[in-house]
Amino acid sequence: MTAVIDLNSDLGEGFGRWTLGDDEAMLGLVTSANVACGFHAGDPSILRRVCAQAAERGVAVGAQVGYRDLAGFGRRHIDVDSAELVDEVIYQLAALDGIARVEGTRVSYVKPHGALYNDAASSPVVAGAVAEATAAYAGSAPSEDASPFVLLGLAGSELLTAAEAVGLRPVAEAFADRAYTAEGLLVSRREPGAVLHDPATIAARCVRLATEGVVESIDGTTISVAAQSICVHGDTDGAVAIAREVRQALEGAGVEIRPFTGS
Amino acid sequence: MTAVIDLNSDLGEGFGRWTLGDDEAMLGLVTSANVACGFHAGDPSILRRVCAQAAERGVAVGAQVGYRDLAGFGRRHIDVDSAELVDEVIYQLAALDGIARVEGTRVSYVKPHGALYNDAASSPVVAGAVAEATAAYAGSAPSEDASPFVLLGLAGSELLTAAEAVGLRPVAEAFADRAYTAEGLLVSRREPGAVLHDPATIAARCVRLATEGVVESIDGTTISVAAQSICVHGDTDGAVAIAREVRQALEGAGVEIRPFTGS
Amino acid sequence: MTAVIDLNSDLGEGFGRWTLGDDEAMLGLVTSANVACGFHAGDPSILRRVCAQAAERGVAVGAQVGYRDLAGFGRRHIDVDSAELVDEVIYQLAALDGIARVEGTRVSYVKPHGALYNDAASSPVVAGAVAEATAAYAGSAPSEDASPFVLLGLAGSELLTAAEAVGLRPVAEAFADRAYTAEGLLVSRREPGAVLHDPATIAARCVRLATEGVVESIDGTTISVAAQSICVHGDTDGAVAIAREVRQALEGAGVEIRPFTGS
Amino acid sequence: MTAVIDLNSDLGEGFGRWTLGDDEAMLGLVTSANVACGFHAGDPSILRRVCAQAAERGVAVGAQVGYRDLAGFGRRHIDVDSAELVDEVIYQLAALDGIARVEGTRVSYVKPHGALYNDAASSPVVAGAVAEATAAYAGSAPSEDASPFVLLGLAGSELLTAAEAVGLRPVAEAFADRAYTAEGLLVSRREPGAVLHDPATIAARCVRLATEGVVESIDGTTISVAAQSICVHGDTDGAVAIAREVRQALEGAGVEIRPFTGS
Repeated sequence: MTAVIDLNSDLGEGFGRWTLGDDEAMLGLVTSANVACGFHAGDPSILRRVCAQAAERGVAVGAQVGYRDLAGFGRRHIDVDSAELVDEVIYQLAALDGIARVEGTRVSYVKPHGALYNDAASSPVVAGAVAEATAAYAGSAPSEDASPFVLLGLAGSELLTAAEAVGLRPVAEAFADRAYTAEGLLVSRREPGAVLHDPATIAARCVRLATEGVVESIDGTTISVAAQSICVHGDTDGAVAIAREVRQALEGAGVEIRPFTGS
Repeated sequence: MTAVIDLNSDLGEGFGRWTLGDDEAMLGLVTSANVACGFHAGDPSILRRVCAQAAERGVAVGAQVGYRDLAGFGRRHIDVDSAELVDEVIYQLAALDGIARVEGTRVSYVKPHGALYNDAASSPVVAGAVAEATAAYAGSAPSEDASPFVLLGLAGSELLTAAEAVGLRPVAEAFADRAYTAEGLLVSRREPGAVLHDPATIAARCVRLATEGVVESIDGTTISVAAQSICVHGDTDGAVAIAREVRQALEGAGVEIRPFTGS
Repeated sequence: MTAVIDLNSDLGEGFGRWTLGDDEAMLGLVTSANVACGFHAGDPSILRRVCAQAAERGVAVGAQVGYRDLAGFGRRHIDVDSAELVDEVIYQLAALDGIARVEGTRVSYVKPHGALYNDAASSPVVAGAVAEATAAYAGSAPSEDASPFVLLGLAGSELLTAAEAVGLRPVAEAFADRAYTAEGLLVSRREPGAVLHDPATIAARCVRLATEGVVESIDGTTISVAAQSICVHGDTDGAVAIAREVRQALEGAGVEIRPFTGS
Repeated sequence: MTAVIDLNSDLGEGFGRWTLGDDEAMLGLVTSANVACGFHAGDPSILRRVCAQAAERGVAVGAQVGYRDLAGFGRRHIDVDSAELVDEVIYQLAALDGIARVEGTRVSYVKPHGALYNDAASSPVVAGAVAEATAAYAGSAPSEDASPFVLLGLAGSELLTAAEAVGLRPVAEAFADRAYTAEGLLVSRREPGAVLHDPATIAARCVRLATEGVVESIDGTTISVAAQSICVHGDTDGAVAIAREVRQALEGAGVEIRPFTGS
């Protein structure tokens, strides 16, 4: 049986004059694009360009919804009222989906960004708001096929629990360049060794993740990590080089790389 | 034959803590709601509330797209690149349509706001950008019925010409409280007498517009004004009272008031 | 000995097309104006108008600094990095002070707004950031007199402690329309009876506060509340009427109403 | 007699997560820093960092005021009401000056950015608004020395005329990498050859500008260009390398490079 994995990356995160990462290069390497929706980054023209290129290459488009915080890039927790958060997620999701449809594709999943990602991982209230918004939009948009909408999040997170509760398909992701504790959690960025930088090491971990479903934790034990997608970063130094090495290593190991949203 | 007219008004123009006009009262009086989309006014929760109430009352929902200018309320011309303007209109239109669909209705027309309304009336380039964006979105969104998407604008404006060029339905509107020149243009707001304030006078003009297709110009001549919709303002002093008097006068004259988007 | 009290109010909280409260009426009633600085509300023209009127009437101008959150009106906690918060407070304070100076007055105190007010009351880190920013600005601006800069906040709050630590003058305020617990804390807005609405009751409490330094708590006990200023709200229904009644009651009781920043 | 010239560059133009150019490297090469003020780019922490480094290196700080347009980077003309523009310029100038003073320096000149630069060059109304705002702020801020505030702009521009009219010191600048017409105007960016890219050519032109006050126009004639400052860009590819070559060539030719604001 062939091992299968998806590669996802945060894209479309420039704004006006400002660019971030190399969207075009990353779109040649990943199978799912988490596209910013304008609240933490991304303007309509950037969104459209990324959607057009994703459509052309068969890369799945996801809505990378975030807190309304351009100045903080969506990385700061904001105490948004839960009902308002639902409305803000629908707004962002619908805006991106409209642009994606104009470019011949559509949004097939939602992955929260930054502080909203963290909050939706740990807080049932925030996770519930994101899931409610996504389900409301998915249920109202006329759909040309029957594939269920996906919420993409951390394995074991409240977001994936909330997805199931509202009838969305939960998909778990792992991080290519992050260390894990023996309990299967991400090592905090404040700890030494939390982020891996060596492309070869990162690529080798991705192969084990995809083929064996395991990763070596920071204290050396081998732990099980069930993930259908691996997140590769697009905005750090050497991001493209790391993503390329990950992809080549997976292909070399006979892993099939394809969107989790595919049939 | 019964005379038929639509009444439209700009709604959803608050933002966060700030309110503007009485959306709920106006929704009881008009048949088409031009709902702000977040660029010049309107936050997601306001949009949703207005869409929900419009759906409940059978009021048609239109996208009141504008320049990205909260500080200027979209009333200042901005030299936006044409291609960027197309993308910004798609973004706003899609965001509002998503929210409308969640509330069981949908956006059926576009009416630009403020400076964009003026620019789209006089500039073929700006008009073309708004029309191109609307047609692109209308063509890509799966549609449950066959009624064509509408662009609502000033009679004789470039916007209506551009609508026809891309296969959208142009609908002309008149203004309840504005004086007209003998040539059928709006008297500039800088001129004395440009804006009417007396509810009875305004209401009587609306009845003539709806039943005879004429209006008395500022120099006393009777001119022909072909309009399928009359715009009543919702944010000025006494706005609700004027709208109520207009509606009652039209009903008293046997005019049927219904959305232009209806079958 | 004559009792002395200051009356302060949040002003300048409109933005562009949107207005909030009646700044001009309130400036005729209070002695200290907490002027929004553009991050949660207030645009440069509003700031200038309020400063001009405050200068004309001898009302002291304070910087009502807030989180960068127009959509949330500064009422939502944001996890801003402490060093960034210092810089944001300096920016807001300096911008308002420049406008105030152009109008012949100057900023003489700082009062945080909304969520920043609450955070600065309970968190030594946030309080320290606001105090550090204020002291840095006060120390760098060439000063034509020797009166120390003031931080205005809740009695017993971390903000007032932080003020003293950096050599600023702490001034405690009380709230005209809020109920107090027997321990001297504000009753949470979520509790019944937390907010008082009757102008006469509110005015009578203000007189006791100013003349006896006490207030009747929600359970009927008389508690000591040391405050040099009373905050009257300007944006609620009937705000101006309440403020007027408070002022008249204080004057009737022989209380001198003057800015705490005065000599 | 030693030739003297100033080198100025636009700095502090990142925003939050987004960076633009290499501020630190440029601060080692120029003598005047046009620092963004937050309306088209620049957040308070970026402003403070640039001011701190400028203070340390003796680089003069100018306020690079712009239209309120983060999405358009201040490069789009906005029809701002003239009185509002005055207030917006005071706000930006005061905010940056406050931060500069905290870092031990101060704003000594104003140079409008992008579309505001162009508008202030050709429109007496816009130029007048910028000059009025600058004069109002300069006149109100307590000044520790007697050097007049400067407006920096294109030679022959309305901005410099407006500066004189309000008692500010006009300083003309030339552009290191732009072609000039035989009439001494900048060749439009839409024309071929409008922007020079070769570092050696640019550097040689700068030396002639500084030592002879002339530049070779695009049709080969030698024209007179009186400039006390040369603008070198910081945000283009190879910007730092070009600036370095310009500086070295000027120093090699015995030109003294120092701020125009110096005594």
